[in-house]
Amino acid sequence: MTVAPPTTASARLLGLLARDLPPDRLTTDPAALAAYATDRSGTRPDGLPLAVAHARRTEEVAVTLRHAHALRVPVVPRGAGTGLSGGATAGEGALVLDLSRMNRILELSLDDQLAVVEPGVITAELDRAAGGHGLRYAPDPASAALSTIGGNIATNAGGLRCAKYGVTRDSVLGLEAVLADGTVVRTGRRTVKGVTGYDLTALLTGSEGTLAVITSATLRLRPVPVATATLAAYFASFEAAAEASYALTRAGVEPALAELVDGPVLGAVDPALRERGAALLLVQCDGAGAEIEAAAVSRLLAPLATAVETTADPAEAEALLAARRLALPALERLGRPLIEDIAVPRSRLAEAAREIRAVSARHDVPVFTLAHAADGNLHPIIVVDPSLPRLPDAAWEAAGEIFALALRLGGTLTGEHGVGVLKRQWVADELGPAAHSLQRRLKEAFDPRGILNPGKCL
Amino acid sequence: MTVAPPTTASARLLGLLARDLPPDRLTTDPAALAAYATDRSGTRPDGLPLAVAHARRTEEVAVTLRHAHALRVPVVPRGAGTGLSGGATAGEGALVLDLSRMNRILELSLDDQLAVVEPGVITAELDRAAGGHGLRYAPDPASAALSTIGGNIATNAGGLRCAKYGVTRDSVLGLEAVLADGTVVRTGRRTVKGVTGYDLTALLTGSEGTLAVITSATLRLRPVPVATATLAAYFASFEAAAEASYALTRAGVEPALAELVDGPVLGAVDPALRERGAALLLVQCDGAGAEIEAAAVSRLLAPLATAVETTADPAEAEALLAARRLALPALERLGRPLIEDIAVPRSRLAEAAREIRAVSARHDVPVFTLAHAADGNLHPIIVVDPSLPRLPDAAWEAAGEIFALALRLGGTLTGEHGVGVLKRQWVADELGPAAHSLQRRLKEAFDPRGILNPGKCL
Ligand SMILES: Cc1cc2nc3c(=O)[nH]c(=O)nc-3n(C[C@H](O)[C@H](O)[C@H](O)COP(=O)(O)OP(=O)(O)OC[C@H]3O[C@@H](n4cnc5c(N)ncnc54)[C@H](O)[C@@H]3O)c2cc1C
Ligand SMILES: Cc1cc2nc3c(=O)[nH]c(=O)nc-3n(C[C@H](O)[C@H](O)[C@H](O)COP(=O)(O)OP(=O)(O)OC[C@H]3O[C@@H](n4cnc5c(N)ncnc54)[C@H](O)[C@@H]3O)c2cc1C
Repeated sequence: MTVAPPTTASARLLGLLARDLPPDRLTTDPAALAAYATDRSGTRPDGLPLAVAHARRTEEVAVTLRHAHALRVPVVPRGAGTGLSGGATAGEGALVLDLSRMNRILELSLDDQLAVVEPGVITAELDRAAGGHGLRYAPDPASAALSTIGGNIATNAGGLRCAKYGVTRDSVLGLEAVLADGTVVRTGRRTVKGVTGYDLTALLTGSEGTLAVITSATLRLRPVPVATATLAAYFASFEAAAEASYALTRAGVEPALAELVDGPVLGAVDPALRERGAALLLVQCDGAGAEIEAAAVSRLLAPLATAVETTADPAEAEALLAARRLALPALERLGRPLIEDIAVPRSRLAEAAREIRAVSARHDVPVFTLAHAADGNLHPIIVVDPSLPRLPDAAWEAAGEIFALALRLGGTLTGEHGVGVLKRQWVADELGPAAHSLQRRLKEAFDPRGILNPGKCL
Repeated sequence: MTVAPPTTASARLLGLLARDLPPDRLTTDPAALAAYATDRSGTRPDGLPLAVAHARRTEEVAVTLRHAHALRVPVVPRGAGTGLSGGATAGEGALVLDLSRMNRILELSLDDQLAVVEPGVITAELDRAAGGHGLRYAPDPASAALSTIGGNIATNAGGLRCAKYGVTRDSVLGLEAVLADGTVVRTGRRTVKGVTGYDLTALLTGSEGTLAVITSATLRLRPVPVATATLAAYFASFEAAAEASYALTRAGVEPALAELVDGPVLGAVDPALRERGAALLLVQCDGAGAEIEAAAVSRLLAPLATAVETTADPAEAEALLAARRLALPALERLGRPLIEDIAVPRSRLAEAAREIRAVSARHDVPVFTLAHAADGNLHPIIVVDPSLPRLPDAAWEAAGEIFALALRLGGTLTGEHGVGVLKRQWVADELGPAAHSLQRRLKEAFDPRGILNPGKCL
């Protein structure tokens, strides 16, 4: 990566952008820039970014990148900044390219069950717009009310429904993106299937702003299920709840969501909940067979759980799901949450939870655990004292052991949040040297000067 | 692409392979080589391949590629040779790398619902092995009894069930592959979700043997549905049947399969079938709600169809599906079928069918049409006189117009069969110059000497 010294190149870039972008597109006021240095991970690199360019059109993204490329100035694409791994953080000398104002839904096709959107559209707004026509956008990160579609695609975001409906990648049919040098490319298509050429759509999905800037997306929508049924089952331990989730898998049940919440999280949300059990398993079935499936789930869970509640009423279902939805805000009241995101083969959930507790005890750091059970995706959340100037070593060491555990169990560092800056030092361990160097060659094929989000992802 | 003159390099390669591979791994007898020059597309390049290397282990693939790379000899990976676009065809001087003997199922995990297999495993055999444990391998190309998993991954094969369960890519969790220079890489993981690094698994899926040779795959298995219900509806025209499929989409039905068969195909399969209607729509619903969904489908189709039959009995269902399964053998009795594979946004199926009929009339070539309705994937099949020495110009012209039509409707040249050699001349039209040149740069990052399946895919 060869990046020019900040002084002259950055001054020239600002001059060119002021000349070539419409008015009101640049923020350079240091007070305003501070917010763009970080994201929801709380990581803050040294220094302040050079400026923020607020693009409104693909051509503005293209002209911005063309100049930055010529001058070798690093560019950090940014959606809503809700990322949890530091992917959108921007330090000294970087230009932030803010896509949040490119927020139009360009098309909603009922017959083809797809939407074409700009990257700044808020996830929940697309879902709401589709809902007006009996459709929905399936990926539902817990941040859906804030996050952008562009950020979701760049991180390949997951959510609760991906147990049945897949991750963001499974809903992206095609993209428009701008390469580092300002070239506009289109990938994919409006059809469900298609195999002409290499799958650039999948390659860009999850690339964390390091390969190209996404300026438009063609997204698959799906019908809102005709019925849903929701169950909440309490257990004597997290392991017992995890084992119960295996019983569902073994019986061939494919729930729309299956969430595990451990005792400490329940206690943080509401002490009364904690009294009902040491762990909670939430299951939702949907579609024409929702009630039949839920009855089967209930029969399977009853002998394993301390209590099982079921409802087909949407309001009651929301009440049951509340324990899961309120987890993060509740933990934020206790301190600064450091949210990990490992995934393991789903039959190893109980083992992973047991080992995580051992890590917590060994380093004397509190760890709270949520999991998307059907995906084997665990969120062990280390809560640290927010008054400390930086993360304590014990928290880092605990995190490192949790990553090592994930790899030992045949899993991954990150199921859905991305590598960003926080997990970079462990990436080579997961990929292995051959795949790691191949990935670097791909990065070079897209961005030979290394200006796009340097220091992230790989 | 710089490929050495066949003479000395190829003689040296054969010597090295004879030295470094175990005995019985090489075929050089010209009589035996002829079968390896072509695939089920019937395309036959000039000359005969140099030899066939029948690998049995990853290390044998690696050593073969290392030598071929050093000597710049082109290598054509090959599974079962059932491809319909000429992807596995091998001309003068090429080394065929046959993976069909790497055919062990290495692992079948019920708890993690996955299989680890070598690339030469026959698709239907994996499905059968999984079936012994209540699981199945969802992708079901009509060639499943013959095709290999490696070939399916290299073409990103589709099938009937992908209406609900997705294409091959949606069932591939991770790969082991050997790069052009003999380096072994591993991609993906054993978990359902994971976002560390770029998605090389998706990039290799559908890359038609031009980026790497797949030597092992970790595949997702799914539970066999608890119930299925199958409907056959006859219509007065293909357009009416296509419009009926839109009605299902609009009503939010997500069938497990939805197949359209036109009148000429029905007539070729069985004249009695043709008398029942001018087009057939086959729909299967599965899962706990199968019967409820099938009843809804029946209600929606009844006013639009001339007749609707429903069954929940597997044997009767097979009888209903027979018209679809027997289509290709029936057309092969009429001549040499040239099977196209365009996909269009699903609301344009009727329009596509109408235009295809016009193309057929204009060039006076018979075109028979099947379609995966839920995916907008049409197979217009041009049947030519098998006694002709080469494809008549009219057939080529008709095919070219069908490709242009697909692109005009916002679709793609190939929904599932791949570009191979037959569709190469139209690829740039679909991708556009920027994406096309980006794809070439990716190819170079994997295979700088261009030895892997040159002249295919891009
Ligand atoms: C309360 C809370 C709950 C959350 N729950 C979930 C969850 O359930 N599942 C989940 O997966 N994540 C979750 N997240 C994490 C976060 O919301 C997601 O990673 C989300 O996808 C980020 O979207 P964003 O618009 O905020 O992107 P940002 O944070 O702005 O950026 C994220 C990454 O994407 C890149 N990027 C952004 N836009 C573009 C673009 N247009 N082109 C190219 N690159 C771009 C950035 O460079 C960065 O690398 C949660 C976060 C919070 C705060
Ligand atoms: C009767 C019939 C029905 C069919 N129905 C369908 C259908 O429903 N859906 C569908 O998608 N296709 C269908 N096909 C096409 C064909 O079966 C598929 O393309 C199949 O995936 C090819 O598998 P194969 O093992 O025969 O591969 P091959 O034909 O041997 O090779 C296909 C391509 O894959 C590459 N390749 C093969 N193995 C490897 C490997 N291990 N590593 C890297 N590259 C490799 C080859 O180089 C070539 O480019 C049908 C074909 C026939 C004859």
